[in-house]
Amino acid sequence: MTKLKKKINSAILIIGNEVLSGRTQEANVSFISNWLNVNCGITVDEVRIIPDIEKKIILNVLDLSKKFNYVFTTGGIGPTHDDITSLSVSKAFKAKYEFHIEAYRILEKYYGKKNFNNGRKKMAKMPKGSSLIYNPSSAAPGFKINNIFCLPGVPSILKSMISNLKPFLIKGLVTISKSFNLEIVESFIAEDLNKLQKSFVNKVDIGSYPFFKFGKVSVAIVLRSQSKKQIKLCEKKLLKIIEDKKIKMIK
Amino acid sequence: MTKLKKKINSAILIIGNEVLSGRTQEANVSFISNWLNVNCGITVDEVRIIPDIEKKIILNVLDLSKKFNYVFTTGGIGPTHDDITSLSVSKAFKAKYEFHIEAYRILEKYYGKKNFNNGRKKMAKMPKGSSLIYNPSSAAPGFKINNIFCLPGVPSILKSMISNLKPFLIKGLVTISKSFNLEIVESFIAEDLNKLQKSFVNKVDIGSYPFFKFGKVSVAIVLRSQSKKQIKLCEKKLLKIIEDKKIKMIK
Repeated sequence: MTKLKKKINSAILIIGNEVLSGRTQEANVSFISNWLNVNCGITVDEVRIIPDIEKKIILNVLDLSKKFNYVFTTGGIGPTHDDITSLSVSKAFKAKYEFHIEAYRILEKYYGKKNFNNGRKKMAKMPKGSSLIYNPSSAAPGFKINNIFCLPGVPSILKSMISNLKPFLIKGLVTISKSFNLEIVESFIAEDLNKLQKSFVNKVDIGSYPFFKFGKVSVAIVLRSQSKKQIKLCEKKLLKIIEDKKIKMIK
Repeated sequence: MTKLKKKINSAILIIGNEVLSGRTQEANVSFISNWLNVNCGITVDEVRIIPDIEKKIILNVLDLSKKFNYVFTTGGIGPTHDDITSLSVSKAFKAKYEFHIEAYRILEKYYGKKNFNNGRKKMAKMPKGSSLIYNPSSAAPGFKINNIFCLPGVPSILKSMISNLKPFLIKGLVTISKSFNLEIVESFIAEDLNKLQKSFVNKVDIGSYPFFKFGKVSVAIVLRSQSKKQIKLCEKKLLKIIEDKKIKMIK
């Protein structure tokens, strides 16, 4: 992995009617985003969830591919009729949709020649020129073409193969974050945070996220930056506010 | 609520760095989508998650507002500096960003005159001409302008106020769904499903979703349609396949 001291961004494109309809709780964004930041210094700057409709997949793949350094799609690379990501991505890039010889061999070996039916063979079809992203748990590989990485939607399978993305990615600046959980309502500290944010514009992002715990209203203040030094300076000022206002910190 | 016998669609726009960074697990899409379908016959056709950046909020609000019947935003209407949804939506529609008199009164009463600080007052500011969406749990209302509904990001608060959307929405056709959990791998039934889908194009959407339960690989086949009759016809054919192939159904 090449190291580069700059910001690298990405988008996640979740393809699947089951997430849009509310049947399935979305479960990959948080994992992918954390993994990308910690391991590769890549931020996720947009997520889209779209249905299994070819035209929509093509439009979104092309749009996001232009706007971001990398795009990670999840879902739609399985054996059934509603798995149309590989075909749609091929059409998006005007690449031939064909058997990837290595993927074909991997799947044939996994299922055995006798059981290698058409549904299973379909998982070896992808845009011409794709590189494989190996899948140690259920064999069927993901693939990379241009700056698009196509991954499965099942969280446990996706997790098993994500480290195989690493060789393809240029490393950017890791975002460091520091959280402070305070036993107050958000609006008690809003004006102080506003001033603090103004003195750290473009240096530290200060987020304020209310939550409930044991029936008490609390707020998490999160400092995020790509500079350790700036985080420390900002933390010092935040702790001063917390002290001055006699706010109780919780763990 | 007016009843209309046609498809009504919508998009959800989630505004919040905390979801993109992976810090917070997205938790509203599934709830909103289910509620909209069951109560209003409205489908969610796209979801986007974007950061707290004014320019991005404006672009996405305008884009989604054009493409869908309704847009539901979550997040960014609280008291802190990073809550910029109301201001951004005002700018998107070139509406004045000002105090909503009724919202101001609600909040002033809730906090008491003495404690009604600037952070709290901010929650009464919204685009001129907005209608309020009342909030029975924490007072601060959401609002509607044009076809955009701005809601809070905290799931429990959002849940408490969602039924107040109903008077604003035109009712469409409810999508009915029926699930069959089968103890097979997806690829075992892929070709049959492909044929079945072909005979129900534009009538029933057939989804196939693999999952793991008690260490076994299984698949959920989901039929979705706005016609009860078509669902029944499709179900009959699916049950025939299940019987012919001696597939075990699980509950």
